[in-house]
Amino acid sequence: MAQFQLNILGCGSAIPTARHNPSSQILDIRDNLFMIDCGEGAQLTMRKMRLKYTRLNHIFISHLHGDHCFGLIGLLSSMALQEKSGTVTIHIFEEGANLFDQQLKFFCRDIPFEIKFNIIKPEKALIFESHAITIETIPLFHRVPCVGFIFKEKTKLRHLKGDMVKFYNIPIKELHGIKEGNDYVTPEGVLVTNSQLTTDPDQVMSYAYCSDTAFNPQVAEMIKGINTIYHEATYTNDFAHLARQRGHSTSAEAARIAQMAGAERLILGHFSKRYRDESPIINEATEIFPNTILANDGMRIDLL
Amino acid sequence: MAQFQLNILGCGSAIPTARHNPSSQILDIRDNLFMIDCGEGAQLTMRKMRLKYTRLNHIFISHLHGDHCFGLIGLLSSMALQEKSGTVTIHIFEEGANLFDQQLKFFCRDIPFEIKFNIIKPEKALIFESHAITIETIPLFHRVPCVGFIFKEKTKLRHLKGDMVKFYNIPIKELHGIKEGNDYVTPEGVLVTNSQLTTDPDQVMSYAYCSDTAFNPQVAEMIKGINTIYHEATYTNDFAHLARQRGHSTSAEAARIAQMAGAERLILGHFSKRYRDESPIINEATEIFPNTILANDGMRIDLL
Repeated sequence: MAQFQLNILGCGSAIPTARHNPSSQILDIRDNLFMIDCGEGAQLTMRKMRLKYTRLNHIFISHLHGDHCFGLIGLLSSMALQEKSGTVTIHIFEEGANLFDQQLKFFCRDIPFEIKFNIIKPEKALIFESHAITIETIPLFHRVPCVGFIFKEKTKLRHLKGDMVKFYNIPIKELHGIKEGNDYVTPEGVLVTNSQLTTDPDQVMSYAYCSDTAFNPQVAEMIKGINTIYHEATYTNDFAHLARQRGHSTSAEAARIAQMAGAERLILGHFSKRYRDESPIINEATEIFPNTILANDGMRIDLL
Repeated sequence: MAQFQLNILGCGSAIPTARHNPSSQILDIRDNLFMIDCGEGAQLTMRKMRLKYTRLNHIFISHLHGDHCFGLIGLLSSMALQEKSGTVTIHIFEEGANLFDQQLKFFCRDIPFEIKFNIIKPEKALIFESHAITIETIPLFHRVPCVGFIFKEKTKLRHLKGDMVKFYNIPIKELHGIKEGNDYVTPEGVLVTNSQLTTDPDQVMSYAYCSDTAFNPQVAEMIKGINTIYHEATYTNDFAHLARQRGHSTSAEAARIAQMAGAERLILGHFSKRYRDESPIINEATEIFPNTILANDGMRIDLL
């Protein structure tokens, strides 16, 4: 079982096609499921991918276009019928909370779990924190208010060098501080630097979801240093005028964002239904940012 | 091209499964599409079955449970993006019209076609009439107000016997009346009965959609003489207690309705997700009403 696995439920755009469901994905963080966007049909793909409702407690809606949220009421309704328990928090813009709350009141009268709406805004903000991870919103540049989501594992502790700890006979009470990066001073007053006592911590997982958005260097600035970026690439360059007009990005623009942000890996999605084959999309991107892959419905990607 | 073709988009029940989408079907009447119920994902199945938005002008929602209407907003939204024109009439209970109208106002601001809501009630009533067909609602017996829909082709004209018309030298202006069933009196005052001059008209199409409903002989009474009946058969007899409790029918009950109504053919649907194979459902029904078939997603059935 991977510790951080991204599950693509849908990576199409406005109109669902036989090839791609509308936007939805689930980040599986050590068996806790975080859903990002919930286009129509997401609940069904979730079942097909054997991702369990019982493990899903947070849903993040990037913006209030139908292809990112029309699956929400059906999903919650099925979760209610399946006797899901606990709390489900929906991170969503205020107008969306009002609309879905009204639908829930009508269609799902006896929900056996609690639904909380956490109102988000189109700004950089910390919206979730646990002992292990943080989740932030960042503003994107679309036709309507829209946010990206940054998932980051918290910095891990450094690894002690067992032989050095033994050599200096370091007391147990000092060890946690050393793992956090402290130096050590022996009873004789000798300074032992942290780098002599420890090796680097394991890499942390970091992931940014950027969809939908027009190309904007500010996005790259806000996701600087993130390991894996999912960025919309609705069009190829020959439809750049449509990208402009509709607040979307071309594939080359997505690649430039990944390059400017210093990412390690780029995943492209939100493909226009005009593409029956996305090879022109990936080809344009890899010329700029080689470590790019195309998302696909049903795909699972280990983030660490 | 069949003149009356039933297209099953989904025949599952509350929770969609990998086997069955929730309820939706399209009756294709000489290339005019009439959609009955619109569960989540209906628009996608419609595309897969190559049924065109441009031909769809009437949508009938039997009741306001999610598995019969959660696909509506997505379908209308995609139709708007596809530049559908003309008018789409949604036949729906009043509370549903209010809810969907609100969603449309938020999610689909520039719709290039007109959407009309025709408010239906849980009663026997004519809700649509053209030169060729009528559509009626009938009250069903579910946990919430719910109607069935009866589609009937209007009675067709009788066929003239060419040789007899010639023999009596009947004037052209009399012919239409004779096709409608009139007798003919010769200039000499001889009565020629209609049966001497004509043969029976072609059979008319008639179809009743009965889902969701508990077993009730009144349903059979209201659909008496209808040729093809679609009736819900959520459970087999061993779950009759659940059928009672939830306002559904067993397969044997559906078969009894078809038998009492004197139908020619029964189509079963709205299967509970507990069945991975519906053979127990069909077996129970055919013992009572042999000409029964199981609906399936993607199935097309000629009604004449």
